[in-house]
Amino acid sequence: MRYALLTAYDGTDYGGWQIQPNAVTVQQRMTEALSAAFGGGIKVVASGRTDAGVHARGQVCHFDADITVPADRVADALNCRLPRDIRVLKSVAAPDGFDAHGSVRSKTYCYRLYVSHCSDPFRDRYSVWMRRDADEELLKRVCGMFVGEHDFRAFCASGSQVKTTVRTVYSAEVRKTENGEGADISLYFTGSGFLYNMVRTLTGTALEYACGKLDEAAIEYALRSGDRNAVGKTMPARGLTLENVDYGFKLF
Amino acid sequence: MRYALLTAYDGTDYGGWQIQPNAVTVQQRMTEALSAAFGGGIKVVASGRTDAGVHARGQVCHFDADITVPADRVADALNCRLPRDIRVLKSVAAPDGFDAHGSVRSKTYCYRLYVSHCSDPFRDRYSVWMRRDADEELLKRVCGMFVGEHDFRAFCASGSQVKTTVRTVYSAEVRKTENGEGADISLYFTGSGFLYNMVRTLTGTALEYACGKLDEAAIEYALRSGDRNAVGKTMPARGLTLENVDYGFKLF
Repeated sequence: MRYALLTAYDGTDYGGWQIQPNAVTVQQRMTEALSAAFGGGIKVVASGRTDAGVHARGQVCHFDADITVPADRVADALNCRLPRDIRVLKSVAAPDGFDAHGSVRSKTYCYRLYVSHCSDPFRDRYSVWMRRDADEELLKRVCGMFVGEHDFRAFCASGSQVKTTVRTVYSAEVRKTENGEGADISLYFTGSGFLYNMVRTLTGTALEYACGKLDEAAIEYALRSGDRNAVGKTMPARGLTLENVDYGFKLF
Repeated sequence: MRYALLTAYDGTDYGGWQIQPNAVTVQQRMTEALSAAFGGGIKVVASGRTDAGVHARGQVCHFDADITVPADRVADALNCRLPRDIRVLKSVAAPDGFDAHGSVRSKTYCYRLYVSHCSDPFRDRYSVWMRRDADEELLKRVCGMFVGEHDFRAFCASGSQVKTTVRTVYSAEVRKTENGEGADISLYFTGSGFLYNMVRTLTGTALEYACGKLDEAAIEYALRSGDRNAVGKTMPARGLTLENVDYGFKLF
């Protein structure tokens, strides 16, 4: 039987989702919890990797196991064996043919920034401080340029091995909330899939456009040429959160 | 010349404010930053200690130094030498006779809790999860019993060496915000001073009253007798934040 899990994690102290030799990862901790709860040899598959330091509020995974625990109780069984910074929010029996990775329709990532006279230790773990404000209309304009099917080669880390660097961004929304001392700015990107570092580099590029370092011609050139020197800097991992994975139906 | 600093810190990774042999502390990091910025031998004095794992949004400290940096620029000079989880929010020239510890009129601590079907990795660092809700009116009633001058011996950790365990709580406020899935509950305590573990034990006691484990007679007995067995459990450090230190005038 296949189970699907809705998970959330604070990625700060992990080397990303995927098991690897030189860092503790979320998949490793999840595998250990599954092993402790239901016995060894269970493989857990996520919608996709998240990179080192990236967070998730809606990562989805599946695993196959021959167990008698009711599906909705699997979450509790795992949570009591997981560290506090990784949680299974919901567990369900997966529908026929469901695959946490293969069935993905789209994913939504959010990059969080805050504007303030001084950085804030209580926000700094999940968002990135900016001393200077960024104009909302300019951010919306440049994010609009990212929407659609493009070759995002310029926006991915060099050396990543993928068949194609063409991806479709379905939407790129800017949400800005002014507060007493500054503002919170969130950039939401929904797409068919994202390349390594792509959302972080889209965000860095959007900010450089908003502050006048890059103009529209430069963005168009980056999207057309694939030239990595034409884009803004890659923002830190800690501002990025995988918010939602969509499978075209309500899974949880 | 004496400078006053308004500081904030995420206490999770520190053994509290005060320098000690076996843990990294906030005072140690602050002393190192002062030394790197202005030279060695500068002692930094806070309004009081915060315990291991306790946070601060409004800790106040002072230091004396013969430097030429304008007072309002001291914050930046220190921030670029401090880890990201400790920040100097503001720096000013201290008024005559000011002492960050000796001049304190009152302090406000907040204990944060959240009610939800599952704990949340993004809230868990600064507040404590409860599966079951706590009644706001009952919390207000028991917090009202804490207000006033009492011998809080029952509410402090045994073995702490203080001259007197009598303290005055000026106010104990309950703020509850319902959200879609549960609630956020904050207990704000303002007082002349607090004993070791006192706010954490007042909070644990308030919660046990709210869920019917302790009644009014038990609370009255604890306040009268000083019997440590009569109170609720001491809540975890991570829910506690030093919010504000009041000196009877606007310092920052």
